[in-house]
Amino acid sequence: MGEFELIRHYFAAAPCAQAGDGVALGIGDDCALLALPAGEQLAVSTDTLVAGVHFPAVCDPFLLGQRSLAVAASDLAAMGATPVAFTLALTLPTVHADWLKAYAQGLNLMARQCGLSLVGGDTTHGPLSLTMTVFGRVPAGQALTRSGARPGDLVCVGGELGNAAGALPLVLGEREAAVALAEPLLAHYWSPPPQLALGQALRGKASAALDISDGLLADCGHIATASGVSIVLSLEQLPLGTALQGLLGLEGARQAALTGGDDYVIAFTLPPAHLAGLQAAGWPVHVVGRVEAGSGVSLRDHAGADITPRTRGYQHF
Amino acid sequence: MGEFELIRHYFAAAPCAQAGDGVALGIGDDCALLALPAGEQLAVSTDTLVAGVHFPAVCDPFLLGQRSLAVAASDLAAMGATPVAFTLALTLPTVHADWLKAYAQGLNLMARQCGLSLVGGDTTHGPLSLTMTVFGRVPAGQALTRSGARPGDLVCVGGELGNAAGALPLVLGEREAAVALAEPLLAHYWSPPPQLALGQALRGKASAALDISDGLLADCGHIATASGVSIVLSLEQLPLGTALQGLLGLEGARQAALTGGDDYVIAFTLPPAHLAGLQAAGWPVHVVGRVEAGSGVSLRDHAGADITPRTRGYQHF
Repeated sequence: MGEFELIRHYFAAAPCAQAGDGVALGIGDDCALLALPAGEQLAVSTDTLVAGVHFPAVCDPFLLGQRSLAVAASDLAAMGATPVAFTLALTLPTVHADWLKAYAQGLNLMARQCGLSLVGGDTTHGPLSLTMTVFGRVPAGQALTRSGARPGDLVCVGGELGNAAGALPLVLGEREAAVALAEPLLAHYWSPPPQLALGQALRGKASAALDISDGLLADCGHIATASGVSIVLSLEQLPLGTALQGLLGLEGARQAALTGGDDYVIAFTLPPAHLAGLQAAGWPVHVVGRVEAGSGVSLRDHAGADITPRTRGYQHF
Repeated sequence: MGEFELIRHYFAAAPCAQAGDGVALGIGDDCALLALPAGEQLAVSTDTLVAGVHFPAVCDPFLLGQRSLAVAASDLAAMGATPVAFTLALTLPTVHADWLKAYAQGLNLMARQCGLSLVGGDTTHGPLSLTMTVFGRVPAGQALTRSGARPGDLVCVGGELGNAAGALPLVLGEREAAVALAEPLLAHYWSPPPQLALGQALRGKASAALDISDGLLADCGHIATASGVSIVLSLEQLPLGTALQGLLGLEGARQAALTGGDDYVIAFTLPPAHLAGLQAAGWPVHVVGRVEAGSGVSLRDHAGADITPRTRGYQHF
């Protein structure tokens, strides 16, 4: 089966928009064509997942399909963008129909959940890796960037931290756990729900935002650097799930939350006046620290002592 | 050196627009932000190049930098789009400063030639591969697609065919050739100039277009299928370079032109009324066939006999 038939066959069930919803021309030409409503900008992000680095070389292709798109869509959430479309560059060592079918099913499910249409891509022969480029739209000037945090803002996260880091030893088969503990952690690792609705709700409210992929400490460092501020995190305030604490204990769970990767939860800074309204509306907003004048990220214990760890998060090299 | 420092350091010289020219927000946040003038659409294309498949695992990184972006930009040319920006997903087995510096220099040079700004990407650890996603803008309704060819149109190409296929044995070290023959062929392989200006000039004139990546026969087949027409190519009319004929002889050169890949020359269909005007304006327009009612692609010799070969071009699997 040739490249073109392959793509057509296995991804035919994906929500391939041919028109409408911002997609003027979908799969099948040299380029896709996207249209933007007047006054909106296009948010673009590219993520690569490599077998053996970002996911186990042998894993469930359905779960991989879900995860590969969720990770990419999380960048749209962090900008407050409304999802439009994505391209998939799929590099495969060999073509196995069963693998492709299951991968496409997982991808398709996540695409529908996110409201993303597959508009193009490339299928190549080589070591297994996946590069997603996602597109969203956002009213001009309303995108959530990393550079707007101001002293006095609260530092917040959109959900529990550390679950994916807690799941990793289970994913890699290095550890076993009771189903009640393993299931929610594995679910978060394989299918982290991109916080797209939260990101859009934060437009005009959050002063800075990003999605946590390298660990809370490292990612807050990116906001601190881009905004020219200091971020002070509170160890006591980290939102930790019961499964994570059950597996790792309180100290281990805190370590996973601070320096583990792959959370894909939004971290954002928020003028305090917006907190009550967001929480009253039911948005998951957990205060984990505050923005101060200065630079860098520090961690304080309940007594206010500086207990900043030296290791800040996952470095890709 | 971490991922972020690495990208900043080696790609700092790339034309990273921070504002203007359609780029509202460049590298450094979760997403880049692109703006479109009213009435224009965004053309998007993704291409992956894998070491050992699409280029030799050991090759000159400067040349690879040029080629990797040129190949992707060629899809913008084929749509008649004006280049705006690109993202680079770079997967590297190890970080070598010299390699990255030279790669970035080649990429940077091609980016400037094409008018493309680097707006984001991802750097990951793994087997060497490169995925480029390119963005261009085109007035709504004026993009050159594959589906508009009509019986009576001419089939044209924008330049010599087969040069990259002729170069491939030289690139792979499987063959040697005199410098006078090798140089122009290798230049075309490593730095195929995307026909961006030609593509824009064809807006409102060409009825269908694509860039030749899989060989003239295979790619004309894509136009024939998308347009619901038959394409009849003339063996005698193929534009063949002197170096290619010097290396392969006339028959070999024709074979390379018909079924070789990697030309990245635009093939397009053109109502005959537009031919003289384009040629008078100095555009490289070579007539290689005609569009008829029916389906498929066929090749005729000077006597009109059907000599269609069975092998149509490069299949990626």
